Amino acid sequence: MALDKDIVVLVGGVGGAKLAVGLAQIVPARQLTFVVNTGDDFWHLGLRICPDLDTIMYTLAGLVNPDLGWGLKGDSVVALETLNKFYGVDTWFRLGDKDLATHLHRSRLLRCGHSLTEATRRMSRSLGVDAALLPMSDDEMPTKIETVEFGELGFQEYFVKYRWQPVLKSIRHAGCESSSITSQVRSALRGADIVLIAPSNPWLSVAPILAVKGMRDTLTSLDVPIVAVTPLIGGAAVKGPAAKIMSELGQEVTAANIAKYYTEIINGFVNDTRNEPLGHSDLRTIQLNTLMKTEDDKRSLAQATLNWIESWGA
Amino acid sequence: MALDKDIVVLVGGVGGAKLAVGLAQIVPARQLTFVVNTGDDFWHLGLRICPDLDTIMYTLAGLVNPDLGWGLKGDSVVALETLNKFYGVDTWFRLGDKDLATHLHRSRLLRCGHSLTEATRRMSRSLGVDAALLPMSDDEMPTKIETVEFGELGFQEYFVKYRWQPVLKSIRHAGCESSSITSQVRSALRGADIVLIAPSNPWLSVAPILAVKGMRDTLTSLDVPIVAVTPLIGGAAVKGPAAKIMSELGQEVTAANIAKYYTEIINGFVNDTRNEPLGHSDLRTIQLNTLMKTEDDKRSLAQATLNWIESWGA
Repeated sequence: MALDKDIVVLVGGVGGAKLAVGLAQIVPARQLTFVVNTGDDFWHLGLRICPDLDTIMYTLAGLVNPDLGWGLKGDSVVALETLNKFYGVDTWFRLGDKDLATHLHRSRLLRCGHSLTEATRRMSRSLGVDAALLPMSDDEMPTKIETVEFGELGFQEYFVKYRWQPVLKSIRHAGCESSSITSQVRSALRGADIVLIAPSNPWLSVAPILAVKGMRDTLTSLDVPIVAVTPLIGGAAVKGPAAKIMSELGQEVTAANIAKYYTEIINGFVNDTRNEPLGHSDLRTIQLNTLMKTEDDKRSLAQATLNWIESWGA
Repeated sequence: MALDKDIVVLVGGVGGAKLAVGLAQIVPARQLTFVVNTGDDFWHLGLRICPDLDTIMYTLAGLVNPDLGWGLKGDSVVALETLNKFYGVDTWFRLGDKDLATHLHRSRLLRCGHSLTEATRRMSRSLGVDAALLPMSDDEMPTKIETVEFGELGFQEYFVKYRWQPVLKSIRHAGCESSSITSQVRSALRGADIVLIAPSNPWLSVAPILAVKGMRDTLTSLDVPIVAVTPLIGGAAVKGPAAKIMSELGQEVTAANIAKYYTEIINGFVNDTRNEPLGHSDLRTIQLNTLMKTEDDKRSLAQATLNWIESWGA
């Protein structure tokens, strides 16, 4: 079922990667495209770090550290610890030795003039990932977080260094005005039979994707199912700051407000069985178990979501 | 003895590092400056690698791998092996994980606009090296080796990839015409009471230093002892291709020919007891045990050389 559909998934980090794995188990790789948030990306220690691309790539390649949901399993941190010990470099952003290979290789490809799209294509193919991984843009578009305590922070400072504890006032997608959607992302979306928005953080992971110039217009021009999966379960985030950010932005922490956030984009919404129903809404909705603890959970949610979308045509 | 003299040493890699250690044991650090070959330097995997600077720095810091004479002791190679395993990157040039910290840090400092002189100063101080380490120039001046078998090779290709086995036809110091001696090197030389040329390979390690624009003129303008230590012992190189290169350049492999090579620069020569005397020469010469196997050997050669030079004034 759903095997003859081209599916594009807008996705961020760890939570989205779980649904990605579920989809990869039931959809042929050639029909699966992931458009990945690069708002978290930054230059660090002279290297281009792309946390969400790496998380999706490592997860789909079966290489991800299962305890963390990111990074590589069985990695060491000799180089980073030596940077600190020898040269006093601040090492709040952990980079494993194996992981460094990815950052070194990507940085070299970028410095040699390759686009991030091309670098990602080469690297994901090298790791045996057959589905298409596309960065949301080839332009640098760093997410900036305005906080009460520290003023504006770079994303990784906010998220990793301060562990998303500062109170968020607003979010800015630097460079979005001069960014552009890539031809690869536009083609994938225009050829899509189904677009999914993974259960990633709407403000931190999906909003940057939607902020790429041309992305919203392309999405709203499509006449296909565009379905978001709730990142809130039982009124709380599974992991990460989604609920905290909603509160800080003055919103009630409800799935209804998530759906509302996506209202111009989506025509369907997968709510969780533990959440309140959306109430009055023009959206098609379904309530499923969206908590993905096991590999079975991931595949089941992917399958149930696609089955439901298939049924729309009936 | 020799404690009140400012000493500048022109030095390359492993062999020179041994004399550097000996000198560092008997000369106060503030009076000791090493002018280091950077003709071996290259950009590799997106990183600036400075093999001779690192060898001298690690050796003086007591961190060098004692079995190799270069690299860091107790290092692992996880990142490099992963680059090969994941992305098929050719890893003929070995870089340890600890060692990567040095290359990452230096590359970042250079990309931030610091000169190699400044980057080296910061890094060597961080590692507790009190003597001054100066790159021969802040300009990139890569040594190129014309070979019979492969045409022109980059230095590390010739030296590491092909293990100096190709037959050498000639050596070129690319960029030497537009290079310049740094103010730091010029000041050190002008303030020197003694200049030593370490027992490094004259063609591969010392020639690049002498090829920096302004270096020869500065050296020949000095009126102080300038003394080379033979890299040949018993008519052979202790390690490396010095003797092989002499043959390929059509020269007899003798200490006399080494002294002749330096003839415009030096006024003294430390020959080895196992070599033939230089014969007729205007140079002051002495024959010493120049084989440095133990820490005692290094200190003894340094001490005997300085004692001998001190005696010139008597």
